[in-house]
Amino acid sequence: MPLTLEDIHLRIRMPDPDHEAAAAVKAREAQLTKPPGSLGRLEDLAAWLALWQGRCPPQVDRVRARVFAGNHGIAAHGVSAYPAEVTVQMVANFEHGGAAINQLCRAFGVELDVYPIDLARPTAAITERAAMTEDDFLAAFDVGYAAEVGATDLLCLGEMGIGNTTAAAALCLALFGGKAEDWTGPGTGVGGAALDHKTSVVAAAVAAHRDAKDPLDWLRRLGGREFAAIAGAIVAARWARVPVVLDGFVCTAAAAALEAYRPGALDHCLVGHVSAEPGHRRLLARLEKRALLDLDMRLGEASGAVLASALVRAAAACHAGVATFAEAGVTSR
Amino acid sequence: MPLTLEDIHLRIRMPDPDHEAAAAVKAREAQLTKPPGSLGRLEDLAAWLALWQGRCPPQVDRVRARVFAGNHGIAAHGVSAYPAEVTVQMVANFEHGGAAINQLCRAFGVELDVYPIDLARPTAAITERAAMTEDDFLAAFDVGYAAEVGATDLLCLGEMGIGNTTAAAALCLALFGGKAEDWTGPGTGVGGAALDHKTSVVAAAVAAHRDAKDPLDWLRRLGGREFAAIAGAIVAARWARVPVVLDGFVCTAAAAALEAYRPGALDHCLVGHVSAEPGHRRLLARLEKRALLDLDMRLGEASGAVLASALVRAAAACHAGVATFAEAGVTSR
Repeated sequence: MPLTLEDIHLRIRMPDPDHEAAAAVKAREAQLTKPPGSLGRLEDLAAWLALWQGRCPPQVDRVRARVFAGNHGIAAHGVSAYPAEVTVQMVANFEHGGAAINQLCRAFGVELDVYPIDLARPTAAITERAAMTEDDFLAAFDVGYAAEVGATDLLCLGEMGIGNTTAAAALCLALFGGKAEDWTGPGTGVGGAALDHKTSVVAAAVAAHRDAKDPLDWLRRLGGREFAAIAGAIVAARWARVPVVLDGFVCTAAAAALEAYRPGALDHCLVGHVSAEPGHRRLLARLEKRALLDLDMRLGEASGAVLASALVRAAAACHAGVATFAEAGVTSR
Repeated sequence: MPLTLEDIHLRIRMPDPDHEAAAAVKAREAQLTKPPGSLGRLEDLAAWLALWQGRCPPQVDRVRARVFAGNHGIAAHGVSAYPAEVTVQMVANFEHGGAAINQLCRAFGVELDVYPIDLARPTAAITERAAMTEDDFLAAFDVGYAAEVGATDLLCLGEMGIGNTTAAAALCLALFGGKAEDWTGPGTGVGGAALDHKTSVVAAAVAAHRDAKDPLDWLRRLGGREFAAIAGAIVAARWARVPVVLDGFVCTAAAAALEAYRPGALDHCLVGHVSAEPGHRRLLARLEKRALLDLDMRLGEASGAVLASALVRAAAACHAGVATFAEAGVTSR
């Protein structure tokens, strides 16, 4: 039975965290052979994992990355440093193991799934029409929503799509207000007059969709298929008790539509890194999320999420493996 | 033949970087299937690795962590939340695989070596006498200097020693000036009156050694055996063309003595993380080093260095493994 908009609205009422598991993590943490709090955010990560996996100790053995790719009608309007054909070429590169995300997944033992979504049918140019019809939006959401997560301890999400920082900037402007220039950045590398043009496209796109009825409708009108799929994957992961690591600006913008629709919808998601794309830092401030890494990266492809997953894995390993003061015969304070 | 102070002074005139290898990295980087600069600091890391390994592509397969432990006479003066016996207990914990550093090394495939240095003979209380005699200093320096690095692509350094943030604060105050409170922090967790006392100990220690003749003499007078060993390991690594990842406040303070003695001495070292110990951020500013991670950690044991080594490994993997535009058939800009 095909997914309906009502299904999505219902499913976004997602499960609550497991406070008991998190309390058990905190109780164990206090007994481990290190000064209290000395592992900093690694300790917070262990508690957060328990909260959303619903178990103590939490476990991060099987990490999966999902990269969703979409094509954008707006890419034909001079907003990117690369032609639209690069989306499909990069998907082939992912499939042949030649992209940065392949090296990162290999380095950290992360399973990679790539989902090209209807690349031969770009979304409509968002300055003119809604990016997706309702059916197209539902189908794209379902790509992320229906994909089996099964035996996964942590899910990294990312995207590829020439033109998609334009869509992300428009979506952020619609969701959070401000000016088009607050949210528009170089993306793959536009500057000068091309950046001014991109900014005016972002402003025009939002102006063209003033009658959107809620954040999910903004997502359908201004986003892309990869945005909808990311939103679907986030919702499904929470139901499956799989914590999520978001990537950069585009991925977080897609996620932000869920948070704007229902505050708390991203509580099971952390942001892997803050991108060099300037809108991302602003977006994280709006979402009150602090990224794990700040390395001037701006590639997408889930690259920042997978890199950060190594820290999450380390946090779980420390929590589960460090001896207690009693076990190790170390004098407590 | 035992190491002499003259040997050390000579060996600190260390080899220069390999600019040719770094240029080759930059040339290759421009051809890889990603927008130029989009991997941010990972690209800088690849170039830095080439500079100090002297090869293109650089390689980070074999990572080694070395933790040096020392005991401090000043620990008996109420500067730590833990008794001095914890140093030897934690060394046993390292040896049995129960500490955080063991879990981190296991998670990232890092080889761990632990060097307890003369733990039964704490250094002298630095408010009264020089921490080490010249012979003790040379012997401790040699522990780090003489340890074989052999087949190592990247060396992570760290320490353990109850009382050693007091020694690190005193060393920083001596090397860089300011006030004792600028450099003194909670360490394992002192606060209130105990922190005030610790601060006054730091000030008194520096006042007691005003006649030190150079930064290495400050290191001998105010540091500890683990500090001297870290300095020795840094010098030996440069000669062996092994780039180094430093850990937190204590480790960086030991390293800073080398930089103060001979500017550029730490060019082959990066700082893995900025510690929650407040003096560390100030110290990094003085050294003009930007840490890779900022996770509120303050454990020592090389924990931040090993965590950061995963990013360095990822940087090398991306540089070596990403396909070129030509290889992947992706349209360049």
